[in-house]
Amino acid sequence: MPEPQPDTNNDPPYELIYWHVIPGRGEHIRLCFVEAGVPYSDTAFIEGGMDTLHTYISEQNLGDKVNPPPLAPPILKHGDLVISQTPNILLYLGPRLGLAAGQGNDIYKVNALALTALDGFSNEVHNCHHPIAIDLYYEEQKEECLRRVKDWVKHRLPKYLGYFERVLSGTASGEGPWLYGGVLTWADLVFFQTLDGTSYMFRKAVAAAKQSGKYNRVFQHYEAVKARPRIAEYLATEKRQKYSNYGVYRYYEELDVVADE
Amino acid sequence: MPEPQPDTNNDPPYELIYWHVIPGRGEHIRLCFVEAGVPYSDTAFIEGGMDTLHTYISEQNLGDKVNPPPLAPPILKHGDLVISQTPNILLYLGPRLGLAAGQGNDIYKVNALALTALDGFSNEVHNCHHPIAIDLYYEEQKEECLRRVKDWVKHRLPKYLGYFERVLSGTASGEGPWLYGGVLTWADLVFFQTLDGTSYMFRKAVAAAKQSGKYNRVFQHYEAVKARPRIAEYLATEKRQKYSNYGVYRYYEELDVVADE
Repeated sequence: MPEPQPDTNNDPPYELIYWHVIPGRGEHIRLCFVEAGVPYSDTAFIEGGMDTLHTYISEQNLGDKVNPPPLAPPILKHGDLVISQTPNILLYLGPRLGLAAGQGNDIYKVNALALTALDGFSNEVHNCHHPIAIDLYYEEQKEECLRRVKDWVKHRLPKYLGYFERVLSGTASGEGPWLYGGVLTWADLVFFQTLDGTSYMFRKAVAAAKQSGKYNRVFQHYEAVKARPRIAEYLATEKRQKYSNYGVYRYYEELDVVADE
Repeated sequence: MPEPQPDTNNDPPYELIYWHVIPGRGEHIRLCFVEAGVPYSDTAFIEGGMDTLHTYISEQNLGDKVNPPPLAPPILKHGDLVISQTPNILLYLGPRLGLAAGQGNDIYKVNALALTALDGFSNEVHNCHHPIAIDLYYEEQKEECLRRVKDWVKHRLPKYLGYFERVLSGTASGEGPWLYGGVLTWADLVFFQTLDGTSYMFRKAVAAAKQSGKYNRVFQHYEAVKARPRIAEYLATEKRQKYSNYGVYRYYEELDVVADE
């Protein structure tokens, strides 16, 4: 793997290709740029941006000489490079934006934490609304959703919160509130965003978890990310799109349940 | 990121920590070692191996000085390094085992393809048996499974097969049967294993897809991996564990459906 170089003025611009209207999985990438203070363009806010996006994911797109076609957004274009898959884009950006812990094998530890938050925690939350089919609307699988959500809140939410509490309790997390090596990495931003979305969706269950006192480090971690100056500023702007019932994290009152004893 | 060094006799041994009885997600890692001809140990075949595994994933495990605890297997130990998450382990091993395409940014393209096969295709297949809850048995969610499977076979299977057919048709795949850069990478092994498991599970639907002639490159790719001398030899041994109804890929006759028109 190449040793990533710091950004210079000669570096090509970073271009994020992602859906408009929803924070979605693109938000993990946005938070990295925001925390690093590095400019990027975003099809969500560009006129014609969705045309660009649809060209990339068209069934006619075979990629180019050096880039395979992407299956789905988010997509990152950086000069001649076009890559997809959220954890992969974060892996590419992390060291370049100063959001990797350090040297050597640290990157694999940060990547594992980010994958656990993204492809475990966040994907399971997403699947709460799509138990039967990704292509069907929530309204077509409402009953199954409720069954799934009740189980998820009871078994899986404590599993993930407990896991990250352990990570934060361990020696490898280092001093301070962060997940690994005593410094803020892209895994911290990913876990923050995942918990933020989950708190929006299952507000009662997350409030109960907070109240229990079992996950104090997790909730301190959440507040520590939220208080980062650039993140705090960004969250207050319109660039931070609201959660809505088109995205990963949705609020349905009937699904906002607490775990039964 | 460190430039990975070729293995030498001084390199510490590779230790795979994974469940016994099922091929599961550990199989992706095994195939990399097999193709590379690099020895590794495997808790699936070691007496007391499951004790080792349970120690790693115990809720009492806080990791060590430099490694956060893993959430779940597969886990790779290599000297002092302990990492988890299948795509992350593959990312670490790929260049070290000579299964990465080349230099520079190639690794991010291979990683994206592997993630698409693993965390898209394979996870969706897995979820076909767990629409309501990962913790519930298939027997407790049979009806929902059938609804999900019918939809998956109709909409998602062609989506993934079509996507990889496009990747193989594109210029970036290079000469020969492989997904990227004209050489066999860990993404090829991942996609092979994913399709192999899916073919076991949905034999009618995959046979119909093959018959359709729409995905000829995909099925040629599958045969090309299967015919690699070390892979072919391995698949014929007992080390290649059979699919069973405990794993990612399961066969239930009532779920072996073809897409309705």
